[in-house]
Amino acid sequence: MIKIALFGCGRIGRLHAANIAHNPNAELAWVYDVYQPSADEAAQLHGCPVAQSVDDILNDRAVDAVLIATSTDTHAGLIEASAKAGKAILCEKPIDLSLDRVLQCAKTIAPYNVPIQIGFNRRFDPSHRAAKQALDNGQIGDLHQVILTSRDPQMAPKSYLATSGGLLRDMTIHDFDLARFMLGEEPVEVFAQASALVNPAVCAEVDDVDSAMIQMKTASGKLCHINNSRQAVYGYDQRVELFGSTGMLISDNQRSHELKQFAADQAGKSEPFQFFFLERYAKAFVAELDAFIKAVADKTPPQVGFDDGAKALALAEAAYRSLATGTAVSVNPVD
Amino acid sequence: MIKIALFGCGRIGRLHAANIAHNPNAELAWVYDVYQPSADEAAQLHGCPVAQSVDDILNDRAVDAVLIATSTDTHAGLIEASAKAGKAILCEKPIDLSLDRVLQCAKTIAPYNVPIQIGFNRRFDPSHRAAKQALDNGQIGDLHQVILTSRDPQMAPKSYLATSGGLLRDMTIHDFDLARFMLGEEPVEVFAQASALVNPAVCAEVDDVDSAMIQMKTASGKLCHINNSRQAVYGYDQRVELFGSTGMLISDNQRSHELKQFAADQAGKSEPFQFFFLERYAKAFVAELDAFIKAVADKTPPQVGFDDGAKALALAEAAYRSLATGTAVSVNPVD
Amino acid sequence: MIKIALFGCGRIGRLHAANIAHNPNAELAWVYDVYQPSADEAAQLHGCPVAQSVDDILNDRAVDAVLIATSTDTHAGLIEASAKAGKAILCEKPIDLSLDRVLQCAKTIAPYNVPIQIGFNRRFDPSHRAAKQALDNGQIGDLHQVILTSRDPQMAPKSYLATSGGLLRDMTIHDFDLARFMLGEEPVEVFAQASALVNPAVCAEVDDVDSAMIQMKTASGKLCHINNSRQAVYGYDQRVELFGSTGMLISDNQRSHELKQFAADQAGKSEPFQFFFLERYAKAFVAELDAFIKAVADKTPPQVGFDDGAKALALAEAAYRSLATGTAVSVNPVD
Amino acid sequence: MIKIALFGCGRIGRLHAANIAHNPNAELAWVYDVYQPSADEAAQLHGCPVAQSVDDILNDRAVDAVLIATSTDTHAGLIEASAKAGKAILCEKPIDLSLDRVLQCAKTIAPYNVPIQIGFNRRFDPSHRAAKQALDNGQIGDLHQVILTSRDPQMAPKSYLATSGGLLRDMTIHDFDLARFMLGEEPVEVFAQASALVNPAVCAEVDDVDSAMIQMKTASGKLCHINNSRQAVYGYDQRVELFGSTGMLISDNQRSHELKQFAADQAGKSEPFQFFFLERYAKAFVAELDAFIKAVADKTPPQVGFDDGAKALALAEAAYRSLATGTAVSVNPVD
Repeated sequence: MIKIALFGCGRIGRLHAANIAHNPNAELAWVYDVYQPSADEAAQLHGCPVAQSVDDILNDRAVDAVLIATSTDTHAGLIEASAKAGKAILCEKPIDLSLDRVLQCAKTIAPYNVPIQIGFNRRFDPSHRAAKQALDNGQIGDLHQVILTSRDPQMAPKSYLATSGGLLRDMTIHDFDLARFMLGEEPVEVFAQASALVNPAVCAEVDDVDSAMIQMKTASGKLCHINNSRQAVYGYDQRVELFGSTGMLISDNQRSHELKQFAADQAGKSEPFQFFFLERYAKAFVAELDAFIKAVADKTPPQVGFDDGAKALALAEAAYRSLATGTAVSVNPVD
Repeated sequence: MIKIALFGCGRIGRLHAANIAHNPNAELAWVYDVYQPSADEAAQLHGCPVAQSVDDILNDRAVDAVLIATSTDTHAGLIEASAKAGKAILCEKPIDLSLDRVLQCAKTIAPYNVPIQIGFNRRFDPSHRAAKQALDNGQIGDLHQVILTSRDPQMAPKSYLATSGGLLRDMTIHDFDLARFMLGEEPVEVFAQASALVNPAVCAEVDDVDSAMIQMKTASGKLCHINNSRQAVYGYDQRVELFGSTGMLISDNQRSHELKQFAADQAGKSEPFQFFFLERYAKAFVAELDAFIKAVADKTPPQVGFDDGAKALALAEAAYRSLATGTAVSVNPVD
Repeated sequence: MIKIALFGCGRIGRLHAANIAHNPNAELAWVYDVYQPSADEAAQLHGCPVAQSVDDILNDRAVDAVLIATSTDTHAGLIEASAKAGKAILCEKPIDLSLDRVLQCAKTIAPYNVPIQIGFNRRFDPSHRAAKQALDNGQIGDLHQVILTSRDPQMAPKSYLATSGGLLRDMTIHDFDLARFMLGEEPVEVFAQASALVNPAVCAEVDDVDSAMIQMKTASGKLCHINNSRQAVYGYDQRVELFGSTGMLISDNQRSHELKQFAADQAGKSEPFQFFFLERYAKAFVAELDAFIKAVADKTPPQVGFDDGAKALALAEAAYRSLATGTAVSVNPVD
Repeated sequence: MIKIALFGCGRIGRLHAANIAHNPNAELAWVYDVYQPSADEAAQLHGCPVAQSVDDILNDRAVDAVLIATSTDTHAGLIEASAKAGKAILCEKPIDLSLDRVLQCAKTIAPYNVPIQIGFNRRFDPSHRAAKQALDNGQIGDLHQVILTSRDPQMAPKSYLATSGGLLRDMTIHDFDLARFMLGEEPVEVFAQASALVNPAVCAEVDDVDSAMIQMKTASGKLCHINNSRQAVYGYDQRVELFGSTGMLISDNQRSHELKQFAADQAGKSEPFQFFFLERYAKAFVAELDAFIKAVADKTPPQVGFDDGAKALALAEAAYRSLATGTAVSVNPVD
């Protein structure tokens, strides 16, 4: 039984709280939020104590691990403090919006050698995971191309967009990680194009884009395409296509049920895709937590490490340089 | 090169005329229709002579075969005359609305021993045919259940319904044949229920039903279900499901193209199914003709013989007796 | 918060225990099983007391409701005892294998007027439920035909088959209920055919069949087909098709993820369907419990009442008479 | 009735010969091929004369139009000669491998003002065409992204590859045209990455690549991705995705029939996609010819003009420059 304390009781934090509480191998030891009513609510729901401060948690020697689901600007600091306190860490992505800060954080925590897992939940989606396994089993031979479609169902609020670090850091970051996971090799060249098409007015206000296409190549010549949009009206569009020498794998979108309608003017109509990540990746969040708990219990390295967080961010920074220069940008692997 | 004369230049006759004219191994030798303008039109389109009488054709020794696409009440007579004239015969279903007349026709033509094929086109549909081949290849092990869905896109005109012989003879006859083809065994017990649901008023006028379910069992215990409707607003609904000990085969509906639409209230919407048999079974009609030409050229028995026409009709008559009595009706195999 | 005691801690009982424990509006008050280790295990998992006897539970005035998931032969007795104790009841299907016993039970409990819900979980499946709602919203106009496909993934153990009441009582009972739910009208005529095709040897030993087709008609002429098999190797096959005057609805099978594979010899291959009812109807069991809890809390009649249990069983008995006589059997509505 | 002469009786020429011969509004006036036996064969099949020289055809005043299906290096010359002779022209793509030669050809033929259509058949595919129509009808609002997947079923012979002009000129040229058709706007920035992954050895010999990804942007910010491979083992992979402000359209792959297989280890398996362009775009070739005949008869401009051929080639040249430089390349619209 792993005792886990939760930092951050917002939307994603509450999801993690419930997953920890229902996990047969974990116990929700503490919850904390800078806005205490959020912490109180989670605590009451799951019957656990509310921490008054970060230190309450870090000083509790019974706590094995922390789950960091606070706002992005606090991630690196909490990682450092938790590592110093010897806690295993599961931290929501991104580690930080600045690659420099991430690399500094890496140095800071290195001596403490605690298990750390970054919350790239999509790697744990049953469908994407089955694609990866089929790939690794050789079912499509050598991988040639990866196509990632990733579109949110609706524009996030302006307040979020203003501090998110931009489309390529807050949204594409997941795709950069998934691309690395599927490619099994580092991209060495990144090219990006982007536009403000969904809501040019809001984009102008927050100095961002809402639509993007990214193209990457690995040293061995594998090609990868990513497309993003802040708004797909038909639901959260999350597809992975792996094309190889002996076949293709498609991890397709999911619906919450399988009703199909037929009428005089149409056939096979179903409901739109699941609304957003809480529903679409519900199983992925559970599996991500399971993997973390197992890594901590077995003292094995987590499946998605600090390096993965840094490397995805390095790709996002390269993509931004590409946008600025109109050229493909070489990526220096972080090591 | 097989010289084929066509009796009947209505909708289905015109389709056959074009298929004969485009077939590299056949020549459209004559066309005939009691309503001469129809024959003239077909003749002009395909550059062939118009016969003034049935005998013009039957007396022409250059004619190898006849294709009978006239009204049902003339089928048996034309079969008999053509057999006496030594012509190979491809006759549209049904042979006749009366099983007695069919059996009499069988006796009449027996001495002439001409190749005769009945126009059960569905056996030649690429999708249904692939299902049959997969079944015969053992891909689903032993066959346990056959489910046939067969619904027309819209009610036929009252004039047709009044003389069609009724739903089970004009429409289900195709399903009875397809059931026999797929089961590979004769049904020995037939049960039917039917209703006037699509258009009770017209049904009352023509003393018929427009919706039916039929259930059959073979001697070895295989089970078969058929459902019919005179009107499926989403298009011609033609599905075959074969369920066996090691798998299932579904020959599904077809669309003329593969556009799928996604919007705020739906996903995966496509156009309705192909409208009706001329489109849905276009390839089947071509393949049916190919098979007939090949049988005539190779002097091998046609794949769908006179017996098949008789046995499908026997099932229709059994189904009508079941409707009348509310009991399952035993079928005496025709031999 | 409704306090619910659980009778029976077998496979389905454990599922219900977890659902009650996780339900925000319910509390698992007691668990009981004649085999106490099963009860102990469930109790430990969910932190609730183990009852030593049925009376421990029925005498506890804090208990609002009981969930009966014991063996079928104890259902009617527990319903009667629970009703006398004034408890709301959620009872797994079937109420009993004998319609006479069911009708007697109905009389016994009538005076106590407790809320009682029968565990026809399929009515609560999101996909089937959406079909029913679309039907009720008029999206396919008037309902003409209902087609139910219901096949288990593998033969149950012989010990189960020997006491199950037979295919039509233990398996088709769900389809009889679902047919009534979808038809919105009572079937008045039932016809059945059945065979031993999956495992004739075991069928002979337990004097049962393993494959069946049933056909029913309502007073207004609606037609319904059901097909069953004890073994569909490709997974639990659960489909509902509703055909109406202006469209069709298909509640299709579900997979646990959406990976599709393409290779030199195939396209679009996915994993088999979800294995069995615990997975396929996981959401349905949760929704069923929610509906029960809400009915108890709101003092409204449960959505699936005792009558529904009796009527489904009456259809099963009619189907058995049809098998025995080879005729369609008229059903006298239970009232 | 339009009299059409055919230059070139290879694989694609024979397809066009049959389409002309079967077209009710056209007549196959002549066939010509530098390798006369090919012309003889086509002539015999369709009953038309064989020309001994190009001039036989161009001097025949009865000839309304020519269809140029010869090798690429003869296209521009035949276009010029045919234009001078006043013939309407349907020319297979590409006009030439060199944009300079194409622009020179444009100047040469300008004075003769004959109707000229370039053989970008994909625009006439029923499924892609329906996507375009739905887009133009506003069904997905404003277009934001276009995703084109275009993969051949197998590597072309080395002899072809050596003179084809390279992957981006012989294969992607179709996608450049389709992109322009769908975008409704000229791409102004092109970026390409490519690799030799399918068969590096052959690629080295012919100095080409076999796998490519291209990304383009229009002046208004629309984004377009194209991916290509010389070999998709599961069949000719031809997909169009249009993503817009109120929905998405997918023109998906097609199979020649709709059989789906289910077994213990899989569900929904169908045959691979149609093998190659002759099958996949059979209807498109017929529709393309229809459109050309109608344009000639009605004296309206063909739907795909000489300019379209030039502009697609300009995009290919830009893509090659991008490959060479690693930067996005600005496209100067040809005008």
